[in-house]
Amino acid sequence: MGEKLHPFDDAVALSTVPGAPTTGRTTDAYANMVGPYGGITAATMLRAVLDHPELLGDPISLTVNFAAAIAYGEFTVEARPTRTNRSTQHWLIEISQDGAVTTVATAVTAVRRETWSAGELAMPQVPAFDALERTVFPEFIAWAQNYDLRFAEGDLTMTDPQPSEDSTSTLWLKDIPARPIDYPALASMSDAFYPRVFLRLGQMVPAGTVSLTVYFHATTAELAQVGAGPVLGTAQAARFSAGYYDQTARLFSAEGTLLATSNQVVYFKA
Amino acid sequence: MGEKLHPFDDAVALSTVPGAPTTGRTTDAYANMVGPYGGITAATMLRAVLDHPELLGDPISLTVNFAAAIAYGEFTVEARPTRTNRSTQHWLIEISQDGAVTTVATAVTAVRRETWSAGELAMPQVPAFDALERTVFPEFIAWAQNYDLRFAEGDLTMTDPQPSEDSTSTLWLKDIPARPIDYPALASMSDAFYPRVFLRLGQMVPAGTVSLTVYFHATTAELAQVGAGPVLGTAQAARFSAGYYDQTARLFSAEGTLLATSNQVVYFKA
Repeated sequence: MGEKLHPFDDAVALSTVPGAPTTGRTTDAYANMVGPYGGITAATMLRAVLDHPELLGDPISLTVNFAAAIAYGEFTVEARPTRTNRSTQHWLIEISQDGAVTTVATAVTAVRRETWSAGELAMPQVPAFDALERTVFPEFIAWAQNYDLRFAEGDLTMTDPQPSEDSTSTLWLKDIPARPIDYPALASMSDAFYPRVFLRLGQMVPAGTVSLTVYFHATTAELAQVGAGPVLGTAQAARFSAGYYDQTARLFSAEGTLLATSNQVVYFKA
Repeated sequence: MGEKLHPFDDAVALSTVPGAPTTGRTTDAYANMVGPYGGITAATMLRAVLDHPELLGDPISLTVNFAAAIAYGEFTVEARPTRTNRSTQHWLIEISQDGAVTTVATAVTAVRRETWSAGELAMPQVPAFDALERTVFPEFIAWAQNYDLRFAEGDLTMTDPQPSEDSTSTLWLKDIPARPIDYPALASMSDAFYPRVFLRLGQMVPAGTVSLTVYFHATTAELAQVGAGPVLGTAQAARFSAGYYDQTARLFSAEGTLLATSNQVVYFKA
């Protein structure tokens, strides 16, 4: 072929050999502190569904349970439809390494139909993408180098961090290099908000996503309209309690269309 | 024994015979329009985890994918730990009937530790439980008869329904008869908000939950403090689009402690 894949497509690429399990592998570009970035794992599991020959429709929901860190290198991905109805399909996806499960996901796909529609949640009013400075994350957070992140609020000040009473971050997100938004990209961006506990405490503490759920509101036509973005994201925690907290995140098109909502529960130590 | 079980405990009760699959059965008390009430199915799947001899810790998250309606009668419930770590445990739970999967769930349980804690989301200011009238749902919605539901906003007016620009309902919930709150009760109450699309359109239309996720914030000590409630619930949709919408719900103790947050994606026809 000769054409170089986008780093995102390279990271979620799966290899299928007839009669053998489907495999993927981690890439340096989307490494996190311990194992790969959770967003890329979520996108990879969704990729396995989208690549499946029996796929029906488009993604409606995805839940990824991070049972153990994925070791750098190769892994097996098994996606299978657990139930196929007339217009909806239910999926179970597992990643394993050396025979042990590291990640378990479920997904729902469906053939969408035109219905009455309404966006109830308004997009936060923030300066335009071009009016904001890019926040460059420290080099050791490899995955973040693939995103042009421009904070309107809740940036993590690396130089003089302060505790905050509000865990909200609102920021523009855009792939580097530019890449048209698709469902795996939305899954990955849903996890691109640094841990809310850092913002509240004004310091980095051990934290890791335990379970991530993404609801896809955008139709394929809407995604085509968004093109390569940018996308506006906003995330906030509701409660920090006894080692765990939640995060609600929303991703909007620049025109204010709610593309995806996501929630995650995060382990932390502080 | 002779002591009569609470209808909720009766509905989620499982039967285990060594060497045979665990079974449950639907009860008339928690019937919905087609099949059992989704909240009782979620609670039953959590019950299967909590009853499991290898259980580690308390529930952190639960995601239930409703793949097909459960027929009234007996069903098989299989819960198995997919990965057990030092302080967290990951679960896969399946309900099947006649060998076909109807419902697939994942859960995370964990041993909680004391940490820095903070509730960021404030409880809505509403009149007290005793200051509001109970809304009695039509008799054909059997499951709702098990809840004393008192709306502060977003009641479904049965007599003269009107479309609304806001899909928010905020209400007190309490088991009938009174029953101390536990994790299965929170799972069930997370689904006790009638479909948001009814409120927006001012009419009942076909609607059904496709996937439900619950995050449990409350510790067992906090649940003991809540006792038999009531609990304050608030729910809202963010977007209705091409046959599906989401619902975010929060459950607070009367003292304002956030006990659980939940999200669901719902199929609708309108």
